[in-house]
Amino acid sequence: MADPLGVNTDRLEADLESLAQIGRRDGSGIHRTAFSEGDMAGRQWLADRLEEAGLSVRLDGAANMGAVWPPDLDRSCVMTGSHLDTVPGAGQLDGALGVVCGLEALRILSEQGVPLSRPVELVAFSDEEGRFGGMLGSQAMSGRLTPESIDQARDLEGVTLADAMAGCGYRARDVLSAERESESIHAFVELHIEQGPVLERDGSAVGLVDGITGLFRWDVRLIGEANHAGTTPMDMRRDAFQAVAEFAMEIDRILEEHGSPRSRATVGRVELVPGAANVVPGEAKIALEVRDTDRQTLHELGDAFRRTLSAIARRRDLGFEFDVVSELEPVACHERVMAAIERACEQNRVVPLRMPSGAAHDTQMMARIAPSGMIFVPSRGGRSHSPAEWTAPADIERGAHILLHTLLELAR
Amino acid sequence: MADPLGVNTDRLEADLESLAQIGRRDGSGIHRTAFSEGDMAGRQWLADRLEEAGLSVRLDGAANMGAVWPPDLDRSCVMTGSHLDTVPGAGQLDGALGVVCGLEALRILSEQGVPLSRPVELVAFSDEEGRFGGMLGSQAMSGRLTPESIDQARDLEGVTLADAMAGCGYRARDVLSAERESESIHAFVELHIEQGPVLERDGSAVGLVDGITGLFRWDVRLIGEANHAGTTPMDMRRDAFQAVAEFAMEIDRILEEHGSPRSRATVGRVELVPGAANVVPGEAKIALEVRDTDRQTLHELGDAFRRTLSAIARRRDLGFEFDVVSELEPVACHERVMAAIERACEQNRVVPLRMPSGAAHDTQMMARIAPSGMIFVPSRGGRSHSPAEWTAPADIERGAHILLHTLLELAR
Repeated sequence: MADPLGVNTDRLEADLESLAQIGRRDGSGIHRTAFSEGDMAGRQWLADRLEEAGLSVRLDGAANMGAVWPPDLDRSCVMTGSHLDTVPGAGQLDGALGVVCGLEALRILSEQGVPLSRPVELVAFSDEEGRFGGMLGSQAMSGRLTPESIDQARDLEGVTLADAMAGCGYRARDVLSAERESESIHAFVELHIEQGPVLERDGSAVGLVDGITGLFRWDVRLIGEANHAGTTPMDMRRDAFQAVAEFAMEIDRILEEHGSPRSRATVGRVELVPGAANVVPGEAKIALEVRDTDRQTLHELGDAFRRTLSAIARRRDLGFEFDVVSELEPVACHERVMAAIERACEQNRVVPLRMPSGAAHDTQMMARIAPSGMIFVPSRGGRSHSPAEWTAPADIERGAHILLHTLLELAR
Repeated sequence: MADPLGVNTDRLEADLESLAQIGRRDGSGIHRTAFSEGDMAGRQWLADRLEEAGLSVRLDGAANMGAVWPPDLDRSCVMTGSHLDTVPGAGQLDGALGVVCGLEALRILSEQGVPLSRPVELVAFSDEEGRFGGMLGSQAMSGRLTPESIDQARDLEGVTLADAMAGCGYRARDVLSAERESESIHAFVELHIEQGPVLERDGSAVGLVDGITGLFRWDVRLIGEANHAGTTPMDMRRDAFQAVAEFAMEIDRILEEHGSPRSRATVGRVELVPGAANVVPGEAKIALEVRDTDRQTLHELGDAFRRTLSAIARRRDLGFEFDVVSELEPVACHERVMAAIERACEQNRVVPLRMPSGAAHDTQMMARIAPSGMIFVPSRGGRSHSPAEWTAPADIERGAHILLHTLLELAR
């Protein structure tokens, strides 16, 4: 039997449209980096919408903003949320979609007086996009921060997190107080655009995320000898770039032998030293990023990449060094939350595509303290972090309905 | 019958040592870039040595400095020379060796009153190393410059050639007057360090250069699509760097199929766009430099490289563009000059290694107006353009003797 409850699609579209005007600059997309003027205007916009709906605005020590409905139910909550901050020059859906659809769900639940056995809580997390490192709000809520990490956080211009928050009327020393107890959250669910091309290629309208990829990033250095490109015969060279090229050609093999269909490996940056047309490269520095949803697979991929780099360097008489620049553990979505999303999809007569999230999200942090899950809607051409980011209105509405029904499944 | 004539090795060594002090900076080698203070001090040093030897200093419109012995012989000359200017942070032999050994040869000829049927002329060419493009003096002498090229010449800081020359008391508008008629030069010979590792590997003390490699330099662009490194599956990427790596792995095959043992090909610079660890490279820009001593081989290599790049781009659904940044025709050394060098080697009981010059030299320009040749002495470890540049004193002396005897062979 179909559920008659639905979101107000006109209001939802109008909200997305009006939020998209905030921080917009002609020709360069949306600018709402964390604790900027645009971000503060976005927060004010959300506060206004919540107040209009008769929902009390909540703000925690990490400046995570939200609301709860019903306000007086003393049980662990069903939480949904995403973020309002953006990268510089963003599109209008990354983060915003999850917050606005969560807002709409909360409004429908309160307006319709739907009987709930658990409170539903909306959260717009602070600094997901990384002005100060990324996922600040969800890291704070899941207890991942330390006083030191907060003290040391600076943006690319050297502005401290403390100064940036103070400029907005927040106090960095309160960030740690945003930590929530695991027992207080029954489930967490985030609606987000896919930011990749898989749903579109598959012709699927909804993605049921079963895990979020972990990753490691290495700065790799291969050290040979810089020589004159004219006077040094090919067989007397110790060309660091040839080693990089040989390695790059091994990436697919390594993924096939040691990875999964979900593995990704990317060389996104290459620097040759001295970097002149007439000098055989004496040194090559590359950024290698590897992702998978399975921790053991990531570990084995790390071993395989290290062995291959080391063998190539040895064979070519080069030095080989690498630094681990970052590591992020993969996260599995929770069966209970995934089952609720699946039932919500059934009610909306959609067969979701089960898939990983290749990008990091606040869910990655929340999954550490609460059973968590994610719903994806398609991104045209896989585009994101750009004004070209776009999702069809029908897909947005479908996603909003499924989020509402997932929250109902979990909270009813 | 051995020739009793020889250079004064003590004086030669003392000269190399005193010249090496000019423009030297502690810890960073020698700085005598063209028309700098160091260069002017180097020129003064040479003028002083010529005057001490009773040789009149000659200066042409391109500020090429030298002398002739005997001064009054009305026949086409046998010319030898190299350059006193250096790259920033140079060693003490590149260019200087050829000038100092030529100076010593002239002194011996004049001191010993050796009967000559042709005058021997020494030239220290201006700006070989390229503050204003390279081989300025030999280009001027061989008639390769135009008023426009002189007007437009600027260094990396934007200083014009005209201003730099004026600051030294020279006039850029006189540069073109340095052109010499082909009939006025019977032969040109340059002694130079190899700047490569071939003589050392071969155990040879002298290189008989039979040609100077030509080259082409391309700026190549491969254009794919920048995508999120996490959300874009491997089989949906249009990764510009993977194409570059595939191309780099084809270089050896292309040289084997279309080149000669003298061919060189180098990718010395790579830039990825946007160049972030978490973005699949949407564009790759590389510098490709290819050299060979044969014009037709260079032409065929150009075709083969273009076909391979084009095929890789097509197969990977990438765009491919390239600009020809520079082209230099290969130059063959003249049989008469090579034969004179060979006889001089026999007199010194050395078997020279016949080899190409992989680097460009003033000889490359002089060969356009005069039968030309080059003598190489070994460079330890192939090093040059660095304070680590070094040649054993015995090899330097042997090279100086062979230059003297080559000049005698050609001028007697």
